[in-house]
Amino acid sequence: MPNRFGKLFTVTTWGESHGPAVGAIVDGCPPRLPLSAEEIQGELDRRRPGQSDIVTPRQEADRVEILSGIFDGRTTGHPISMLVRNADQRPGAYDELREKFRPSHADYTYQAKYGIRDHRGGGRSSARETVGRVAAGAIAKKILMLGGTACHGAPVEIRAFLTQVHDLAVPAGVLEKFPSLAEVEATPVRCPHAATAEKMIERIKAVRSEGDSVGGVIECRVRGVPPGLGAPVFDRLEADLAKAMLSLPATKGFEIGSGFAGTRLRGSEHNDAFESRDGRVRTVTNRSGGVQGGISNGEEIVFRVAFKPTATILRPQQTVDGQGAPTELTARGRHDPCVVPRAVPIVEAMVALVLVDHWLRHAAQCGTFEF
Amino acid sequence: MPNRFGKLFTVTTWGESHGPAVGAIVDGCPPRLPLSAEEIQGELDRRRPGQSDIVTPRQEADRVEILSGIFDGRTTGHPISMLVRNADQRPGAYDELREKFRPSHADYTYQAKYGIRDHRGGGRSSARETVGRVAAGAIAKKILMLGGTACHGAPVEIRAFLTQVHDLAVPAGVLEKFPSLAEVEATPVRCPHAATAEKMIERIKAVRSEGDSVGGVIECRVRGVPPGLGAPVFDRLEADLAKAMLSLPATKGFEIGSGFAGTRLRGSEHNDAFESRDGRVRTVTNRSGGVQGGISNGEEIVFRVAFKPTATILRPQQTVDGQGAPTELTARGRHDPCVVPRAVPIVEAMVALVLVDHWLRHAAQCGTFEF
Amino acid sequence: MPNRFGKLFTVTTWGESHGPAVGAIVDGCPPRLPLSAEEIQGELDRRRPGQSDIVTPRQEADRVEILSGIFDGRTTGHPISMLVRNADQRPGAYDELREKFRPSHADYTYQAKYGIRDHRGGGRSSARETVGRVAAGAIAKKILMLGGTACHGAPVEIRAFLTQVHDLAVPAGVLEKFPSLAEVEATPVRCPHAATAEKMIERIKAVRSEGDSVGGVIECRVRGVPPGLGAPVFDRLEADLAKAMLSLPATKGFEIGSGFAGTRLRGSEHNDAFESRDGRVRTVTNRSGGVQGGISNGEEIVFRVAFKPTATILRPQQTVDGQGAPTELTARGRHDPCVVPRAVPIVEAMVALVLVDHWLRHAAQCGTFEF
Amino acid sequence: MPNRFGKLFTVTTWGESHGPAVGAIVDGCPPRLPLSAEEIQGELDRRRPGQSDIVTPRQEADRVEILSGIFDGRTTGHPISMLVRNADQRPGAYDELREKFRPSHADYTYQAKYGIRDHRGGGRSSARETVGRVAAGAIAKKILMLGGTACHGAPVEIRAFLTQVHDLAVPAGVLEKFPSLAEVEATPVRCPHAATAEKMIERIKAVRSEGDSVGGVIECRVRGVPPGLGAPVFDRLEADLAKAMLSLPATKGFEIGSGFAGTRLRGSEHNDAFESRDGRVRTVTNRSGGVQGGISNGEEIVFRVAFKPTATILRPQQTVDGQGAPTELTARGRHDPCVVPRAVPIVEAMVALVLVDHWLRHAAQCGTFEF
Repeated sequence: MPNRFGKLFTVTTWGESHGPAVGAIVDGCPPRLPLSAEEIQGELDRRRPGQSDIVTPRQEADRVEILSGIFDGRTTGHPISMLVRNADQRPGAYDELREKFRPSHADYTYQAKYGIRDHRGGGRSSARETVGRVAAGAIAKKILMLGGTACHGAPVEIRAFLTQVHDLAVPAGVLEKFPSLAEVEATPVRCPHAATAEKMIERIKAVRSEGDSVGGVIECRVRGVPPGLGAPVFDRLEADLAKAMLSLPATKGFEIGSGFAGTRLRGSEHNDAFESRDGRVRTVTNRSGGVQGGISNGEEIVFRVAFKPTATILRPQQTVDGQGAPTELTARGRHDPCVVPRAVPIVEAMVALVLVDHWLRHAAQCGTFEF
Repeated sequence: MPNRFGKLFTVTTWGESHGPAVGAIVDGCPPRLPLSAEEIQGELDRRRPGQSDIVTPRQEADRVEILSGIFDGRTTGHPISMLVRNADQRPGAYDELREKFRPSHADYTYQAKYGIRDHRGGGRSSARETVGRVAAGAIAKKILMLGGTACHGAPVEIRAFLTQVHDLAVPAGVLEKFPSLAEVEATPVRCPHAATAEKMIERIKAVRSEGDSVGGVIECRVRGVPPGLGAPVFDRLEADLAKAMLSLPATKGFEIGSGFAGTRLRGSEHNDAFESRDGRVRTVTNRSGGVQGGISNGEEIVFRVAFKPTATILRPQQTVDGQGAPTELTARGRHDPCVVPRAVPIVEAMVALVLVDHWLRHAAQCGTFEF
Repeated sequence: MPNRFGKLFTVTTWGESHGPAVGAIVDGCPPRLPLSAEEIQGELDRRRPGQSDIVTPRQEADRVEILSGIFDGRTTGHPISMLVRNADQRPGAYDELREKFRPSHADYTYQAKYGIRDHRGGGRSSARETVGRVAAGAIAKKILMLGGTACHGAPVEIRAFLTQVHDLAVPAGVLEKFPSLAEVEATPVRCPHAATAEKMIERIKAVRSEGDSVGGVIECRVRGVPPGLGAPVFDRLEADLAKAMLSLPATKGFEIGSGFAGTRLRGSEHNDAFESRDGRVRTVTNRSGGVQGGISNGEEIVFRVAFKPTATILRPQQTVDGQGAPTELTARGRHDPCVVPRAVPIVEAMVALVLVDHWLRHAAQCGTFEF
Repeated sequence: MPNRFGKLFTVTTWGESHGPAVGAIVDGCPPRLPLSAEEIQGELDRRRPGQSDIVTPRQEADRVEILSGIFDGRTTGHPISMLVRNADQRPGAYDELREKFRPSHADYTYQAKYGIRDHRGGGRSSARETVGRVAAGAIAKKILMLGGTACHGAPVEIRAFLTQVHDLAVPAGVLEKFPSLAEVEATPVRCPHAATAEKMIERIKAVRSEGDSVGGVIECRVRGVPPGLGAPVFDRLEADLAKAMLSLPATKGFEIGSGFAGTRLRGSEHNDAFESRDGRVRTVTNRSGGVQGGISNGEEIVFRVAFKPTATILRPQQTVDGQGAPTELTARGRHDPCVVPRAVPIVEAMVALVLVDHWLRHAAQCGTFEF
């Protein structure tokens, strides 16, 4: 259960950083969706390590193998099992970690919870777990593209990108327009504001050379979502988005629409007036961030996610061993000074999973019967 | 399903603002817990409207009736059904809303989703729904007090309080200590820093006199949580806390530990070094906010929640009617210029629900069998 | 969780035999269904005790109160809370049971599991729990009538009836036709074969006069189910029907289509050949009982449920007390010599819950998107 | 969701008969359980085709590969992913089935539900799906052996065996004793009564030579189950066992304890009197089949499952094609005249899954906190 996400369109991920493979099962996928391994591969390639000189040099081809659920190039409605073999394993590189808890990693809490842990590369806590999420998210994205167009006249498009690295933020007001995928992918930091992107890259290189790390903020916008997705109480759309985001490694915060800054406005400044536009009910402003009362209102969904600086740094750190005795730890080897750029496709994948699941739930309750 | 929360210790809430009653069912409660209606009433009284001159004047006695699941003063392990009759209904007061969508409320999205809505007082989207959460949370709190002490040597204590109203924030560094309940309850704004509390009260009164509203920030701290609660992937403890918080009306953001501010630190500044203290593994700092790798590490859990300004304001607002025609709306009557103080017991209730549920899940997987 | 049934259309029941009330919450109901308390009352009246001289003389008006989820005579899509007050409580009548375990009742196992039990009238194990199921099932039945007609051209009709009491069984071959409700309700035993019904009534009266009890078999047929409901593996339609039936008090067996007798046929005798009939694919015979590969095939769903003789008998029985000491027990007072006739509406309710839930699940996965 | 079983100890199976592989994910497994691939292989070997001359000649080595969740020979508490490659695929052998619906198979209903199907060897409806169940069940069995002994002083032992093939049944009264595994495995029909086993084998051979098939009945007994497993209402232990059994291909019925025959007894004959024996509360008889009020009472759990004759027969059968036109079908090639013997380890696997899941659920609710 703890490794499954979603209620109707579900994904279960499995696998450790230095085990033989990682993977995912998608269960509940609508039948007859055209789907090829290449489409999934495309998203995995965006997540793959070793793509630029500002991320981890771990080399993984990350070739996905689809083992079930596809026939004649279409989904059958049965579980889709996807497998990615781990290639660049260096188990010996982690011997020191068998006995020492890395600060701000999951080593201590895994040991405390389970009484056992696979210490090699973080085991299950490694970001390699997100390979399965991205593979599943690729399927969800395709459903939103095709299904959104067929059901609702427009594809649902999800665009995540960096707005901040360390203390370098995109200036206010310069990203009003929905960024294109090309703008995001133009630089390895995935910030569509070119001037800021350049500074971010320099900062990451500088930090890397010092064996240190930085975090940042990802903004995500979604357009084409029809009104009506979500639920009024516990399963509010923003609640499920928040859960999805805080389920990602290294995340420390989530805000939607006006977010924390909105707490400094008055109601008269914050409320989104309604108007008729484009032949339907629209809001004049979008401080709600596309969700009202837990349910999408058809405006752009806009939220931001805070990522802490990478816990692995190439500097000596104070810690304890399994017996609680003080010791020092110095990570060696591969090092990812800023994971935020590679988190962009992962954020998008999780959003796609949330939206498809809620779409199916909405259709079930509100679209099955006419009275 | 959408009105149920939790996997093992579950609560289902029901009821509308101006229907006959609201309530909750708690299913999965451990047996033999001593429990009286008075204990639940105590938490409901903290949430009750009409308690001070800075909140809504709606008058509700909010007397809870326990209909099942208790025998000889103890829980039996069977569902606990709790009922609170609505008293102060003024259905006629809402006739205008049958046809007009209130800005930044759930009126439009409910209509878009369901094709029908109970417009009286917001129906299911009203904060009266949270009566059921608080009643269920009172049971969870008692479990954490008694069960925590029995299992773990210390009660689990949950303390929420305001740190910001509009642009008035508690100064940095003055709330290092875990505030006492008395300090929080000392003023109707539930801010334990007396000087700030006074300013907050004045600001709320000023805003109310202008027919306007303000939001704010609640911080919540939890002490006594044993290491090991949570899960490594989708059901991370912070993910379920984020979901719980964003499931509350009017919330726009969540951050844990260092939160959004932590994105401006370097890894070498952010990491929480381990040490041995009090005979167990502890962190020197707590930027993680008590959770690492999705699992509690035994430190204080610390998070903050952003509440937008109340959507109901006593000023004319631009909107549309059910046919999309432009119209103006002016709320009349009861008005709650700042809901944040009354959200304090609701936040605590949701945290208690999350923690009991995760405690049971952890005990099931990791505490049932010894190998 | 253990008191909830269904995945999308869910019911949670609560309440004990001698507590203040029993009830149910229906969550996930489609919006805009016309619904009145009278319609629910109609089904409750079929289940109500004290209706004839062959069932328990307990007197309960069983008036249902709807507390939420209905507005302007239609469902809103929000939880429907239903409450039935217990009237004919005689708690004192059960004092002996505080210390003694009734044979073949739940007394011992409840005590073993929970360490506490409400001994009055069986508490939660009482058949009064099924009040909530029948109330929820009445809503599901209405959905199947209206929704089936709108979506599929024909209402889904569920008809349960007795085919056996003790060793008196309806002769083979006399019930080929789908019985009408009037035929079933013609006698208090709810056996549509009049000659057998008469014998059953006499047998029950004879057994009652001896302070003894008998069981029997209920057959249930469902017509109008579209092909496609169900799932291929764990959630096969017959698996969920079996679970629903075995979740009823006093049930000991379930069989669908050819059932246990079918094990004595050869494949060449058992297989249901396909043909074209009425413009669609039909089977020539129906040994499958309307389900193939876990999914409805559009034929009548036909299954049977075994009910053991009532455990409460007015004769001395050997048992032990809470300390394990041998003792004797003689039930006094109210006595239901055969619960099977009153189980008919309960069986129907559970079938309706299963079918609506599967219909919504099917529509979600296979009817939301067109590719 | 439809391919997942269990609430806390869950298994998700995936894979088609003629796809590249089949497999399963176990999520929620307790940590630190010693586990090797060989132990899982042992159970798979019992299920494997081609083992004797009375079953299908399909040749599959069915070697299991464990891809995650094990470290240093013990479970880590993370998902256990298991993979079995399909070897003996003959896709071309199924070309005729692309257009014709096999009687009493899932061909028509899959097409009706999904609008697409993998026709090769039944795709997902093939009994090869049960490979994943058996692999997962092997883990559950080990937990019951080790955990049962540690927690409860005795291992939980699950023993399934044939009591009937076609009209050949084990004589009443000869199988009172709990059969040993050796007695069951002594013959390929897995009937521990040697004389009946011999007749069964002959009957199966005779039927095979005629291109026909037969079904039968499996009885399953479980000893060592502690009192207290199960739940009082929807998740009764017998309800979940019934669901588990009816989720298996070719099953048509389930009965526990006295079953259908018990409906012919009076209450005074059927009730299980309590006594003190072996220092604890026991029943004198066991017509309840080890479960009372939905909860185990510590006696042997005894139930029976009806399997219809195999649908695939080597005789011409009347059917229709995808356009509804009448046609004839004659299966060729591999043919399993009686699947019941190979269902024995599958039944045991499902029982183990149910029991471990309920054990964890019971421990969570009733064993976590002491009040």
